Amino acid sequence: MRNKRIGKRTMKMESTPTIISTASVVGPKEGQGPLKDEFDVILPDDLYGEKTWELAESKMIQTAMELAVQKAEKKLSDVEILFGGDLINQIFPASFAARELAIPFCGIYGACSTMALGMCLSSIVVDGGFADYALCGTSSHYCTAERQFRFPLELGNQKPMTAQWTVTGAGSVFISSSGNGPKIKYITIGKVVDKGIEDGNNMGAAMAPAAVDTIYSYFEDTKDDPNSFDVIATGDLGSLGKKITEDLLRQRGIDISDVYTDCGLEIFDLKEQDVHCGGSGCGCSATVFSSYIYPKLLSKQFKKVMLVSTGALLSPTSTLQKQTIPCIAHAVVIENQ
Amino acid sequence: MRNKRIGKRTMKMESTPTIISTASVVGPKEGQGPLKDEFDVILPDDLYGEKTWELAESKMIQTAMELAVQKAEKKLSDVEILFGGDLINQIFPASFAARELAIPFCGIYGACSTMALGMCLSSIVVDGGFADYALCGTSSHYCTAERQFRFPLELGNQKPMTAQWTVTGAGSVFISSSGNGPKIKYITIGKVVDKGIEDGNNMGAAMAPAAVDTIYSYFEDTKDDPNSFDVIATGDLGSLGKKITEDLLRQRGIDISDVYTDCGLEIFDLKEQDVHCGGSGCGCSATVFSSYIYPKLLSKQFKKVMLVSTGALLSPTSTLQKQTIPCIAHAVVIENQ
Repeated sequence: MRNKRIGKRTMKMESTPTIISTASVVGPKEGQGPLKDEFDVILPDDLYGEKTWELAESKMIQTAMELAVQKAEKKLSDVEILFGGDLINQIFPASFAARELAIPFCGIYGACSTMALGMCLSSIVVDGGFADYALCGTSSHYCTAERQFRFPLELGNQKPMTAQWTVTGAGSVFISSSGNGPKIKYITIGKVVDKGIEDGNNMGAAMAPAAVDTIYSYFEDTKDDPNSFDVIATGDLGSLGKKITEDLLRQRGIDISDVYTDCGLEIFDLKEQDVHCGGSGCGCSATVFSSYIYPKLLSKQFKKVMLVSTGALLSPTSTLQKQTIPCIAHAVVIENQ
Repeated sequence: MRNKRIGKRTMKMESTPTIISTASVVGPKEGQGPLKDEFDVILPDDLYGEKTWELAESKMIQTAMELAVQKAEKKLSDVEILFGGDLINQIFPASFAARELAIPFCGIYGACSTMALGMCLSSIVVDGGFADYALCGTSSHYCTAERQFRFPLELGNQKPMTAQWTVTGAGSVFISSSGNGPKIKYITIGKVVDKGIEDGNNMGAAMAPAAVDTIYSYFEDTKDDPNSFDVIATGDLGSLGKKITEDLLRQRGIDISDVYTDCGLEIFDLKEQDVHCGGSGCGCSATVFSSYIYPKLLSKQFKKVMLVSTGALLSPTSTLQKQTIPCIAHAVVIENQ
């Protein structure tokens, strides 16, 4: 055994888990941002015809998943396994979407690292020969996240400048054992890293060390060259977390600055859209990967990409109990040579 | 591909994912029940030296995982991947335990189906050649669950007789690509099933159709004989849910009554312990499997077992929004011939 492991933590895909389609659904604010021409669906409001934001979020993730399957010219009944999760207590949106989709369902929780976690597990299932079609996806919604993690929106609380803006968006990635398209080559599962940050309005600083740990592990395991990538994209570290990640990696001898971006900086215009340090939420890396990175991989404008979705594993209860914020990051390396 | 799939939904393990050890940690009430001589650790109180119940639950899952690794005479650093989750918002106990264990971590959420979900994903990772040592585990705690899902304990609310008692307990299962012990042969991942039950105090009735769907799918896929099993154990359906499951399966032509039990009926003495319909919670099937079923597999008193952990994917928010309860069940078939 161990033939699929490279170094300590990186797993090599031996067959060809191929990303055959992706889809994205976003809210109105995201639909006014720099990627407005890339999304599949831009909602005119944040309720999507539902009575509550949580039900709207569930419908968004369901729509993103249905769209990904349609784009690959498959049916929902062709999909053998589904990985989904989100930020909301008991992953309410993903669980309710899975009920409608009627696909065997594995609920996952990685906070904002969920997109990469879903891609890692889908790749394992497909590469291991357990399924030919695995679907994964995730969502976040500004209104569901704010009222659960912070304050009721009606209060109109102001945020410190280190805060980020939770993306209203859902993204889905459809992975197959065959077909044309970008291939998943390596995955690196994250460890929980906690450097003692307590401030839920400074997630970038909290999550950066987790991103550094995973990115460093990948390069240590594979001896790969950062500059062989067209893009290394973290999930939602924002402007502050991105700077910290770059600096910490440089201190450990790895310079990714020429190819590095953060999805939280791609989805919003930080100067115009009043989002402080940038976008965040599960939907951030999910929609940026699905709408912006994947099409460029498909057209070979990008030939090699690392997606490192980053998650803060705090809960409102742990915060009230004065605990620090444990964080995690999972990496997926995708090539279309 | 598809060589590892049997029928529509069942996956066959081709190599030998072996359960090399298990461990269990329970609270005082569980320690007075019928399995009191089987658990590894019985806590004298429900705080385990911590300041809050959530931190106590986290320490319980951490202890169960450390014990399982110790029993297999391995070190935490030998473990290549960890699957964990629980009932608490943002899987606070499992995430904080994963921080201490420092093993690459995949957070999962399947409500009370988490033990079987973790065993399914661990088996896939090991059988697929991605890891030699995969650890999974889950926990629940009466006090954390009650205050999150129902009412503050201080209120002293009475429950209807259809209700169950959330187990205070954590269980862990350690799976390896080699070694002696019971082998995981088949897994069946559940679909979300929702028959319209709205009553959070009648989880057995809500979850029974999900158990039926998964058990039926396994027998349809494999053409296996129910009576070839020593035990088929659902997770936490309690006395009412067990009856419904038996009846619904019989209506579909499958009679499991001679070999069927529910972990919620094994862990408590229903006549003496005032638990209404029986035990529930992630920790129910986790501790009953770890402390009672696994040792009997090891000694070959049981040669073939199906564990079907069952989960109700509701959240307090979905309940307030008048939604019904989506449920799920995952099955693991284990043999030691």
